[in-house]
Amino acid sequence: MLKTVWSERRKLVEEALKVELYRERPLNKTLGEAMEYSLMAGGKRLRPILLMAAADAVGAEGTDFLCTACALEMIHTYSLIHDDLPAMDNDDYRRGKYTNHKVYGDGMAILAGDALLTLAFEVMTRQKGVSKEAIFQVVSEMSRAAGAAGMVGGQAIDLQSEGKRISMEELRQMHLGKTGALFRAALRSGAILGGANASQLEALTKYAEAFGLAFQITDDILDVIGDSSVIGKPVGSDLRNEKSTYVTLTSLEEAQELANTTIDKAICALEGLGHEADFLRELVKYLSDRKN
Amino acid sequence: MLKTVWSERRKLVEEALKVELYRERPLNKTLGEAMEYSLMAGGKRLRPILLMAAADAVGAEGTDFLCTACALEMIHTYSLIHDDLPAMDNDDYRRGKYTNHKVYGDGMAILAGDALLTLAFEVMTRQKGVSKEAIFQVVSEMSRAAGAAGMVGGQAIDLQSEGKRISMEELRQMHLGKTGALFRAALRSGAILGGANASQLEALTKYAEAFGLAFQITDDILDVIGDSSVIGKPVGSDLRNEKSTYVTLTSLEEAQELANTTIDKAICALEGLGHEADFLRELVKYLSDRKN
Repeated sequence: MLKTVWSERRKLVEEALKVELYRERPLNKTLGEAMEYSLMAGGKRLRPILLMAAADAVGAEGTDFLCTACALEMIHTYSLIHDDLPAMDNDDYRRGKYTNHKVYGDGMAILAGDALLTLAFEVMTRQKGVSKEAIFQVVSEMSRAAGAAGMVGGQAIDLQSEGKRISMEELRQMHLGKTGALFRAALRSGAILGGANASQLEALTKYAEAFGLAFQITDDILDVIGDSSVIGKPVGSDLRNEKSTYVTLTSLEEAQELANTTIDKAICALEGLGHEADFLRELVKYLSDRKN
Repeated sequence: MLKTVWSERRKLVEEALKVELYRERPLNKTLGEAMEYSLMAGGKRLRPILLMAAADAVGAEGTDFLCTACALEMIHTYSLIHDDLPAMDNDDYRRGKYTNHKVYGDGMAILAGDALLTLAFEVMTRQKGVSKEAIFQVVSEMSRAAGAAGMVGGQAIDLQSEGKRISMEELRQMHLGKTGALFRAALRSGAILGGANASQLEALTKYAEAFGLAFQITDDILDVIGDSSVIGKPVGSDLRNEKSTYVTLTSLEEAQELANTTIDKAICALEGLGHEADFLRELVKYLSDRKN
């Protein structure tokens, strides 16, 4: 089930992204191209998939919230563009293609990121078929997750810890922000739009937190044992850049064990939900043998 | 009246900005400092002042919307931080102080801008005393104005026209985005929050468009005849950087004349509004002899 649904929905996301991107014409052609270049560069579309799956899990129809799912993917994409800049991680490749600034220059890449973040909030307000109250909650959820107390805060910790050995607790804090916050917003937004009750929302929040951690640990593992042609970027870069990761701070074996117990935790969090949450159960299990 | 009200409200804005900035703790201390550095660096607070004045003009109490006014100032501040970066305008000074990246480095400056833009949308959802419907409209208004079809689009035109001579029409397009869109969002958001009817909203939109143009022309004039110690940055930089401006594309005299007729246009737009709009009338007149 996992692969079929994922691939169908990924297609829906990609079509919708293009529609939302060009609903209003950018003032500058190159800016529009730079935005499209990174937004349509493929990728797993994991965050939109999670958002829709959370809505399914509480008995709604996930694809009804494609619009908000696209907004979330725009936030994710903007963060990758800025993260790759020479002033940050200085990466030349992403998903097997040149990074945005390598093609359009640093200035245009900064603007493309800015524009995608801004567009995300516009797109959220375009969501149909739910109350303004629910959209309002989603805007609040997303902005908090993406900001200084969430994703951007995590990036700042990352920036400041470059070349330094940080503690396991600092590493956890960094990832809670850098990747965890947006996964949390994905699941919670889907749940809110789908009309979740308090206990469903709590269950999906717990799932999200475990999912985010498991994602990060398996990401660190992939950097060591992955295949660069599948990942789309060189392996071993964390070690070369002296980055603290779950693997470098412990060992490959310990990291793998921590990943497995965290995946179990995510599944347990969904205990109170029915078979509508099966996709989410499968999704977190896939992390243990992901290839990219 | 103008100076007293302006100065009182500017104080209110500055107090509120600090409260909104720290309502949620940034994950990283330096990131918080970098955000505060630029947000609290003074400035005229013109956009928040305009937003509140638009609400006054339709019979509401402008200061009730301090929260949304702060959100707008955060968007403005983020745009200045990114605009000053070496990859963009490469400016070392702003308001007589080092620019953000000169103090915190390029990476942290990018993140501080990102975080302020994101926070702006969070702060908008904190606005009390109005319907969710009105806030919803404001989020839509602000995101469209700040994005690829507005402010960021204008910045992209600016980036691409560096060192090139552009036409008067291209210059107009650039400024419509770069500064005009946010002025428009300021006036329209204030009007919407204040409960404007359709004809009031139209009048304030027309005023905003003329105000934005007059602001830009007088800004270009100041770069030629201003006092650098009052402006807080060197004069003559447009000429040195071969930037196309209303002065370089025409002449100082023609630019001054265009500024005056545009100011008259702004005042005429307010014809149907009562004395509640007097502040806006005075405000646009001040542009003709502004010193910074």
